[in-house]
Amino acid sequence: MIIDCHGHYTTAPKALEDWRNRQIANLNTPALGPKVAELKISDDELRDTIESNQLRLMRERGSDLTIFSPRASFMAHHIGGFETSATWAAICNELCARVAGLFPDHFVGAAMLPQSPGVDPATCIPELERCVNEYGFVGINLNPDPSGGHWTSPPLSDRQWYPVYEKMVEYAIPAMVHVSTSCNPCFHTTGAHYLNADTTAFMQCLTSDLFKDFPTLKFLIPHGGGAVPYHWGRFRGLAQEMKKPPLAAHLLDNIYFDTCVYHQPGIDLLTKVIPAKNVLFASEMIGAVRGIDPETGHHYDDTKRYIQAAAITDEERFAIFEGNARRVFQRLDAQLTRKGL
Amino acid sequence: MIIDCHGHYTTAPKALEDWRNRQIANLNTPALGPKVAELKISDDELRDTIESNQLRLMRERGSDLTIFSPRASFMAHHIGGFETSATWAAICNELCARVAGLFPDHFVGAAMLPQSPGVDPATCIPELERCVNEYGFVGINLNPDPSGGHWTSPPLSDRQWYPVYEKMVEYAIPAMVHVSTSCNPCFHTTGAHYLNADTTAFMQCLTSDLFKDFPTLKFLIPHGGGAVPYHWGRFRGLAQEMKKPPLAAHLLDNIYFDTCVYHQPGIDLLTKVIPAKNVLFASEMIGAVRGIDPETGHHYDDTKRYIQAAAITDEERFAIFEGNARRVFQRLDAQLTRKGL
Repeated sequence: MIIDCHGHYTTAPKALEDWRNRQIANLNTPALGPKVAELKISDDELRDTIESNQLRLMRERGSDLTIFSPRASFMAHHIGGFETSATWAAICNELCARVAGLFPDHFVGAAMLPQSPGVDPATCIPELERCVNEYGFVGINLNPDPSGGHWTSPPLSDRQWYPVYEKMVEYAIPAMVHVSTSCNPCFHTTGAHYLNADTTAFMQCLTSDLFKDFPTLKFLIPHGGGAVPYHWGRFRGLAQEMKKPPLAAHLLDNIYFDTCVYHQPGIDLLTKVIPAKNVLFASEMIGAVRGIDPETGHHYDDTKRYIQAAAITDEERFAIFEGNARRVFQRLDAQLTRKGL
Repeated sequence: MIIDCHGHYTTAPKALEDWRNRQIANLNTPALGPKVAELKISDDELRDTIESNQLRLMRERGSDLTIFSPRASFMAHHIGGFETSATWAAICNELCARVAGLFPDHFVGAAMLPQSPGVDPATCIPELERCVNEYGFVGINLNPDPSGGHWTSPPLSDRQWYPVYEKMVEYAIPAMVHVSTSCNPCFHTTGAHYLNADTTAFMQCLTSDLFKDFPTLKFLIPHGGGAVPYHWGRFRGLAQEMKKPPLAAHLLDNIYFDTCVYHQPGIDLLTKVIPAKNVLFASEMIGAVRGIDPETGHHYDDTKRYIQAAAITDEERFAIFEGNARRVFQRLDAQLTRKGL
């Protein structure tokens, strides 16, 4: 089985965006804003957007199951306050839950949290609980910068985040550390902010002893870990200067990298430098880079090809395609096992 | 000849730091602060710090000439206002000029600019002129985020920066795009902020048409280009979606990457993905990572070894070690040519 651990519902029906735009237009007059019940999307519409997009490509490329969360760039936690985000997250998560319900063999949910700048992350827990308990979601996306590029929250090692981590540990769910749209004109969202956040989150973990407090906490760093594998020597050296344990002992029981790296040399480096047990297959399809690479004739984000061509053993390839995802997403493994898979 | 295009005076005598601390202590009472004339460092002290550190390692490792600028993390443009930075930059640049004067075969200067958040970058031009005309400096370090991790300046493509670019073009000097200390607790200075800035600067250029306005402007992106070469497919794909020309035509007549990547797989990727004509040898020695890599028994930042072991032709290796630096730093080439080198 090939599990893609990083997919967002980037193709949701236009009604979703329209609803959000009305919500944003009435930020200061929420009573005039749209009611949740006003968003009407039929199962057929959901089916269409998935069958003609993500599922079509999964079939073409040969992946089986996608861990599916709301569109990352649309989370936009910086817009409005907690109530804004709470309503928006509930709507987006429910849509992903419905997709997973319509295509139970191909999609399983991961939750967007109702984060908001300056608001205690513990306020996210009811939505997290709902997604796990009612929807069967198997992970969450945690935004280390709900301000959208102004970086006003404390580092991930700060105790502010601990209530979320306690719940993650209790539920045995990992977090993909994933920012949303940048509203800072310095940072292009998918070309700079996403990758910067990946590197930043890794370094926040490196400089702290977070995983001493939470030995079973698991973070998935998307986009191949930002700059981290390319600069693995730098990070090993920095850890050494700080008298931290070697990175394998310090971080690699808790930190994993996905394979959203859109060319063969990048994947070759990732699989050479990072132990196979810490790499999870992903494409972020349909996402930031949708075109066809003229150098290969294949889609940039058809990352399965790169993994297949990488100089790794069959055992390592199995770990990257399936084994690691089942180990990191324990609730997914339990669901699959119950199905006899 | 082996030219290291990225060295900072990280080993300056303690008196420099003491002076700066007094300046900072009197930010609100500058009349009580130290006078420039109170900083007294003898030529012998300068000689000692260089001979026992940078020059010793250059001799051990076999590099000949370092393009030498003030310590990047000490620029700290976020501290005080323009006058604070102007005085501090003048002092730091003068010290580098004195080092270059004491060791003319081994060091040539690159200038720190007196940037300050919210201050027009054009105010940096007198110091830039002084460094080029009086000190024979061959380049500048340009900080895209003088706020120190809050990213409050406009992108490098903004017209705010154009006066600096006009002067760079007039003088035929490149800029290394290099931030300073992060005062944002989210960003570790050398493990996150530096690499993020590299990626961010590249993407600011990618999304703009800056090099149409300045066809001969040259930026050197340090630290191996941050996350850029590792994600080269992502950047090619993003440029394609934006209907920009292919990256080679869009950016590679103007953007160069140094080799401050501290392990062999990283350098292998860099030299595989980025054309050799766009890669300049550098170590950032003595800098962020000073230890010995237990996996190799050599210093992490002994990057010459990685270039020597990379699967490139002798011609490409010559370009990386010397040819490209002389092409990008035109005033350096002129100085060397005058010496018969």
